Amino acid sequence: MTLEEDLIQKLGTLNISFEREDHDAAKDMVAMQQVLQHREGVKAKNFLSHDKKKNQTVLLMLRAETDMNLVHKALGRLKGWKDLRRAETELVKKLGLEKGALTPFAVMNDADNKVPLYVEDSLKAQDKIWIHPFRNTASLCLSMADIQRFAEEHGHNVNFFNPEPPAAPTADGVAANGGGGGGKKAATSAAAAPGQESTLGMTATKDGNYPEWFQQVCRGAELIEYTDVSGCYVIRARATYVWKRVQRFFTDLIEEKGVVEELYPMFVSSAALHKEAHHLEGFAPEVAWLGSTGPEPFDPEKPDGKGKPLKECIALRPTSETIMYPQWAKWVRSHRDLPIKINQWCNVVRWEFKQPTPFIRTREFYWQEGHTAHATDKEAEDWMWMILDFYRRVYEELLAVPVVPGVKSEGEKFPGGKITSTVEAYMPNGRAVQAATSHHLGDNFSKIYEIVFDAADGVTRSFVHQTSWGLTTRSVGVAVMVHSDDKGLVLPPKVAMGQVVLIPIPYQSKSGENPAEAAKRNEEIRDKCERLAAELKRADYFEGDSNKYWKIRAYADTRQDKTPGWKYNEWELKGVPVRIELGPKDYDKQEVVLVRRDTGEKIKGVKWTDLTARVPALLREIQDNLFVQAKKKLDDAIVKVTKWEEVTPALNQRKIVLAPWCQEEETEDEIKKRTTEEAAQTLANEQATQPAAAAAAAAGEGEEEYAAPALTGAAKPLCILTDDDPRRPPLTEDTKCFLTGKAARCWALFGRSY
Amino acid sequence: MTLEEDLIQKLGTLNISFEREDHDAAKDMVAMQQVLQHREGVKAKNFLSHDKKKNQTVLLMLRAETDMNLVHKALGRLKGWKDLRRAETELVKKLGLEKGALTPFAVMNDADNKVPLYVEDSLKAQDKIWIHPFRNTASLCLSMADIQRFAEEHGHNVNFFNPEPPAAPTADGVAANGGGGGGKKAATSAAAAPGQESTLGMTATKDGNYPEWFQQVCRGAELIEYTDVSGCYVIRARATYVWKRVQRFFTDLIEEKGVVEELYPMFVSSAALHKEAHHLEGFAPEVAWLGSTGPEPFDPEKPDGKGKPLKECIALRPTSETIMYPQWAKWVRSHRDLPIKINQWCNVVRWEFKQPTPFIRTREFYWQEGHTAHATDKEAEDWMWMILDFYRRVYEELLAVPVVPGVKSEGEKFPGGKITSTVEAYMPNGRAVQAATSHHLGDNFSKIYEIVFDAADGVTRSFVHQTSWGLTTRSVGVAVMVHSDDKGLVLPPKVAMGQVVLIPIPYQSKSGENPAEAAKRNEEIRDKCERLAAELKRADYFEGDSNKYWKIRAYADTRQDKTPGWKYNEWELKGVPVRIELGPKDYDKQEVVLVRRDTGEKIKGVKWTDLTARVPALLREIQDNLFVQAKKKLDDAIVKVTKWEEVTPALNQRKIVLAPWCQEEETEDEIKKRTTEEAAQTLANEQATQPAAAAAAAAGEGEEEYAAPALTGAAKPLCILTDDDPRRPPLTEDTKCFLTGKAARCWALFGRSY
Repeated sequence: MTLEEDLIQKLGTLNISFEREDHDAAKDMVAMQQVLQHREGVKAKNFLSHDKKKNQTVLLMLRAETDMNLVHKALGRLKGWKDLRRAETELVKKLGLEKGALTPFAVMNDADNKVPLYVEDSLKAQDKIWIHPFRNTASLCLSMADIQRFAEEHGHNVNFFNPEPPAAPTADGVAANGGGGGGKKAATSAAAAPGQESTLGMTATKDGNYPEWFQQVCRGAELIEYTDVSGCYVIRARATYVWKRVQRFFTDLIEEKGVVEELYPMFVSSAALHKEAHHLEGFAPEVAWLGSTGPEPFDPEKPDGKGKPLKECIALRPTSETIMYPQWAKWVRSHRDLPIKINQWCNVVRWEFKQPTPFIRTREFYWQEGHTAHATDKEAEDWMWMILDFYRRVYEELLAVPVVPGVKSEGEKFPGGKITSTVEAYMPNGRAVQAATSHHLGDNFSKIYEIVFDAADGVTRSFVHQTSWGLTTRSVGVAVMVHSDDKGLVLPPKVAMGQVVLIPIPYQSKSGENPAEAAKRNEEIRDKCERLAAELKRADYFEGDSNKYWKIRAYADTRQDKTPGWKYNEWELKGVPVRIELGPKDYDKQEVVLVRRDTGEKIKGVKWTDLTARVPALLREIQDNLFVQAKKKLDDAIVKVTKWEEVTPALNQRKIVLAPWCQEEETEDEIKKRTTEEAAQTLANEQATQPAAAAAAAAGEGEEEYAAPALTGAAKPLCILTDDDPRRPPLTEDTKCFLTGKAARCWALFGRSY
Repeated sequence: MTLEEDLIQKLGTLNISFEREDHDAAKDMVAMQQVLQHREGVKAKNFLSHDKKKNQTVLLMLRAETDMNLVHKALGRLKGWKDLRRAETELVKKLGLEKGALTPFAVMNDADNKVPLYVEDSLKAQDKIWIHPFRNTASLCLSMADIQRFAEEHGHNVNFFNPEPPAAPTADGVAANGGGGGGKKAATSAAAAPGQESTLGMTATKDGNYPEWFQQVCRGAELIEYTDVSGCYVIRARATYVWKRVQRFFTDLIEEKGVVEELYPMFVSSAALHKEAHHLEGFAPEVAWLGSTGPEPFDPEKPDGKGKPLKECIALRPTSETIMYPQWAKWVRSHRDLPIKINQWCNVVRWEFKQPTPFIRTREFYWQEGHTAHATDKEAEDWMWMILDFYRRVYEELLAVPVVPGVKSEGEKFPGGKITSTVEAYMPNGRAVQAATSHHLGDNFSKIYEIVFDAADGVTRSFVHQTSWGLTTRSVGVAVMVHSDDKGLVLPPKVAMGQVVLIPIPYQSKSGENPAEAAKRNEEIRDKCERLAAELKRADYFEGDSNKYWKIRAYADTRQDKTPGWKYNEWELKGVPVRIELGPKDYDKQEVVLVRRDTGEKIKGVKWTDLTARVPALLREIQDNLFVQAKKKLDDAIVKVTKWEEVTPALNQRKIVLAPWCQEEETEDEIKKRTTEEAAQTLANEQATQPAAAAAAAAGEGEEEYAAPALTGAAKPLCILTDDDPRRPPLTEDTKCFLTGKAARCWALFGRSY
C-alpha cells in the first residue's frame, strides 16, 4: 500500500470527505496555483523548518503569499526557536515526504509527535484547503476542521499562530502592556492581535515565552478580559468559579474557629488612614483618592462645571486595618469582649504603576482580610500560625499547589506588624510568588487606635494583641501558572467549573448508505451523551481532603456545527479535567473512552455502567497527580547554596536558593543590589553571543523575562524557614552567612519574586 | 399574706438575695436619703405617671436627682406620650401601692403589663439599689439585674431610657443625622448618647418614633456601626449573615437557570460611562470620581505636593451596564453565543446627599446585578418576569416579607430601559420601599454598545435584547423594619445567625444550705445546656420552602456574670427566634421551657428527648407566622381609592392607595406636587391644635416623619398591578382615573416611598 492509499483509507475510516484533482506535477507554489486555478479554495503552502540549536523540526501550513522570514521570526518569538531554517532533504525524507510534495498529512508518519504542526491563523476558519496526498501530481480539498481532526486522530494538535510582527509599543507603557485598548480596538486585539495569539488556540509555549503563554492561557481559556481602565481586568466565569471555591474552602475552615463575616466600608477618611504612619508608608504611593462627585469629574480649570469637589479627603481602602480598628476601640471594654474574630471578602485598590499581570498584579483585586484581637500576645501568635496553615491547605489541598511556609525578613514584613508569616509558591518561570500572608501585629495598632480591655482582675488595663491575614485572587493566577501547559488551561478538578465534558463522535455514512440511517445513529449517540452527563451530574462525588460530597460538574457538548477535534481543542484549552468520547463503535459496545487533561492518557473501554464510579476516582487521581507533579518541580527548584558565587548561576537556571543567613537588615539591600548587577552582567554577556534573545530580555524592562535564558531584576529574601521544616539543613555554630560570612541565624529562601 | 410577705416569698423562689434596712417612715426622697445615708448604694426615686389623652400609665424608677420634667419630655419624645403628669392617687392604688411607697416591685400586681416599667439608663449597671417593699418604713437593696429578673418573671420588660434632651443638630445636617462623629466621639454616642438610646435596651417604640426606633434596633442588635465617612456603615456579623443567606438563596435559583458569576472592575472610564446619555442621567449627580493617587490627595493649591492628579477620568460604578456591555460586544458574534447570563455580587457607589438610613439609603451598598443578552425581545421579557418572581421568593420565602409585584410607571422606570418591573414592600411607618427591580432593556443598550449577532440564517444581523436586575442589602433593612418590635430585632429563623439560645437558670442556695451543693447543681444545669445545644446543632432541620436540610444554629449562653433576665433582654434585642430556659425544677423533670421571640409565648414542659423534633417545627412555625402577620399588615395598608379627595386622608393614616389611573406621564409630577402641598396643609392644621407634634414633624425636614400623625413629603406611583394580580379590581370602560377623570388604563399603587 502506498502512503497515498493508506491516507485515502484513513480518511475513509474517519468519514472525512474531500474533493480531488489530478494534475500535472506542481513543483512549486506558482505551479500549484496554476494547475488549480479553476478550483475554488485556498492553495496551501507547506514547509518543513528546523532549528539546529534546539534540534527542533516543525511542519508548517501557510498561505501561498506568506513571507517565510516572518514565519520563522514569529516562531522564534513565540517558541524560542531562534534559528529556524528550511529543513534539509534528509529530514524531509524521514517523514516519508518528498520535496515539492510536503503535506500536513505527514502527521500520520510521526506517531511520536516529534514534529509539531503549525498552521497560519487565517486558515483556521477555511472550508476549502487544497493539499497534496504525498505527491505533487494530485491535490485533495478539505476543510481545516477535517484536517485538524485528521491530525488529532494521529496524536497531533494543530497549533495556530499569527506570523505578523507585534505592534510597536506605545509611549504609555502601562496601558499598552496591560490595559488593552478601549472598545472595538480591544475587540480586534482580543480576536487575533497581530504577532500574538488568536483566542482559540495556543501558540506561545510555557518554556518559550512565558509571559505571552500566560496571557494566552488567561484569554484563550476565558479567565480574563481586558478593560479600558489600565490594570483592571474582568474575572470571567471560569476564574470566578475557582475563586468561589477558594472562598468556600477557606470559609469552612475559619467558621469552625468562630470567625464571623462583616462588611466594612471601602472608604477611609484621611484622618483614620494617616493615624498609623509606619503602616501607611507601605501603601502610601498606591493610595487612590476620591476627588469629586457629579456627572463629570471636577476640573479645577472650570470651577463652575458640573463636577463638585469633595470637601472631605476620602481614600479607597488598600487594606482595612485603619477602617476596622477605630470601630473595635468602641466595642472592646472587658476581657469578656475578647477575642474578636472578623473576616471580610471584598475588593481593595492599590494603584500600582508597575506592569500589571492578570491575577498577579492588578490595581483592584479581591481578597479576604481577616482580623482578630486577643488578650495575650501568645494567643495572637498561635492564631497567626493556625491561619498560615489554613492558607497552606487552600493551596495544597484545593489548588494542588505546594507552598513553603516561613517568616518574612525585617525588610519584607507587613508595615506596622510584628511578625509576618508567609506561604511562598514557585512559578515555572523561576519567580517566586508570595501566595498569602498572616501577620502578628502585636499591640502596635491597638496602641494607636486605643483598643484597650480590662483584665479579669478588674484592675489591669491592656492593649489587645492583634492579627491580620489575607489571601487574594492572586491564588487563582498561581494555580493557572503552575498547572497549565502548552495546550492551555489545566485546573485541579476541585476548582474546575466543568469537570467532565462528553463529546459525541458522529458516525459518517458510507457511500450508498441511507443518510437517514446515519442521522438516526448520530442522534442516538448525542442523546446517550446527554443522558450519561445527566447521570454523572446526579452522582455523589466524595472529594477527599475537603471531606465533603459534591455533585460531578459534567456536561455534554452536542453541538453539531463543530467537529470532535474542534471540541477537543476547545475543552483542552479551557482546562476540563476529563473528556469522555463516545463514537459509534463504543456506542455499540456500551462503552466510552476517558481522556485525562493532565497527562493526555486515554482510558479505553470504560463501560457506561462503571462511569459514576470511575469518574470520581479519576478526578481524585488527577487532583493528586497535579499536586505530585508540582511538588516535584518545587523540590527541584530549591537549590542549597552556601557561597554567594553560587547564587546568580542558580537564579539563571530559574531556581530559588536556600542559604544560611545572618539576617542583618542591611544585607537585604545588598542582596538586591548584587543580584541586579550580576543579572545585568549576564545579559551583557548574552548580548555578545545571542543578540536577539538578549535584546528581547532587555525590552522586558526588567519586569518580565522574555524568552531569555536569564531572568532579570533583583532577588530578595522570600522567607525564613521554620525550625521544623524538613527542608531546613542543620544550623550549627559553624554555619556561616552566604553573604557576609558571619554566623548564620537561619536558613532562608532567596529568589526573584512577582 | 401582705403584699410585702408575698414579695419576700417570690424573691425567695427566684433565689434573689437582698439586704434589708428597716427605718423610720420616709415620706419623700429627702427623708429616704437621710434614713439610708449610712448604707452604700443608690436610693432610687419611684414614680407613677399618666398620659390622659393616650390613657397610658407608666411606672418609673429614677435617680433621686433626676428632673421629672426632663423625664416626661423624654418619654413624650420617645413614645409619643406628650401629656404625662404625675398619676393621681386612684391609679396608684390600683397597683396596690401607696403614695410615698412606690416601688418597681409593683409589677407583680400588674399581670397584664398595662403599666410598663421605665428605668433611667444610668441605673442599668448598678449592683446596689434601694427600693421599698410596698411600705416606706423599710428598704431592700438588690442589683438592677435582679430587679430586672423579678420584673421579667412577672411578665415585664425593663425599658431603659436616657432622660437627657438630644444634642442640638449641627450645621452640617448630613453628618449629624447619619454619619456619626469620628473616632472616640462616635464611640461615646454609640454607648449612650444623651436623649437617645443606650446600646443595650430599646427606649423608642415602633409606633412612637419610628426612625429613632429603627436606629435603636440597628445598633442595639449590632446590625450596624457608624463610621466617620458620612453615609457609610459597617454591616456587622448578624446583618451580614442575613445578606449571605439572601446570596445563597438567590444564587441557587439563578444557577439552576444557567447564570454564571463573573467579577467586573468597579472602575469605569468616563468615555464608557457617558456613552449612554439617557442612562447616565439617572445617576449622574451621584457619580463619584477618582481624583488622585499618592500618600495624600492632590491639592490644586499645592501642585507639587505628594498627591498626583489622575490623568484619566475614572468613576466608581453606580451600576455596571456601561462596564459590562462594551465587553460583551467583543464576545457576541453569532446566535450560538446567546443567551449570555451573567451575575455579580459587588459593591456600588451612589454619592447621595439625601439623609442616609442604614441599609435603606447608603452611599456604598452591596448588591447582585444580573445581566443577560437574548436573541429575541420576548425571551428577554420572559426572563425579566422570571427574575422578578425570584425576587418575590427571596422576600416572601426567605425574609417572610410580603411584596407586591408590578411595573414601574414611565417616570419611575430605569433610565435607558424599556420596562422596569418591581417588587414593592410596605414599611410599618407607612412608606413603601422598592424592594428589588428587574429591567427589560430592549435593544437600547445593545444599539449603543454594538452588541450584534448573526442569526441562524447567516444573513440577518440583529442587536441583542437585554435585561438587568438587582437586589441590594436594602433587603436586610426591609426585613428588620417589617418584623422587629419594641424589644428589638425580630428575624425570620431562616436568616437568623443564632436560631436558638439556651439559658440556664441557676439554683440559688437557701440559707443553711451547703453552697458547694448549689454550685454543683448549677454546673450540672449549665453543662446540660451545653449538651442540649450540641445535640441541636447536630440535628438536621428541614427548612421548608428552600427544600434544603440545614443544621440548627443553637448555642448555650452559660456566662456566670450575667443574670438570666439580662440574657433574656440581650437575646430578645438581638432577635434570636427561640429561647430555651432550663431551671432547677425543669432539670429535675428533664424538661425545658421554650419561648418564642415573635409572640413571647412560653411553651412549658418540653421533654429533652423531644427537643430535636420540636425545635425545627417551632422554627418553621415562627417563619410562617412572621409572614402571615406581615401579610395582614400589608393587606390592611392597601386602601382602594377612586377619587383624589380620598388620597391624602389615606396617606395620613399611613396607608398606600390603590387607584385607577390614566397613566399619562405628566400626571406623575402632578401627584407629587399635590400630595406635598396637602401634607403641608395637614401639618399646618396640626400646628394649630398640636403644636409640639407638628414642630417635631416639621423638624424632620420632610425626610422622616417624627412621632407625627401625618407623613410628610410627596407620594408617587409605586407600581402598576399586573393583570393577574388578585388585588386588582376590574378595569372596565367606565373606570375613570382618580386624578384626571379620564379613562383609566390600569390600577396602580401610590404612596410615599423611601
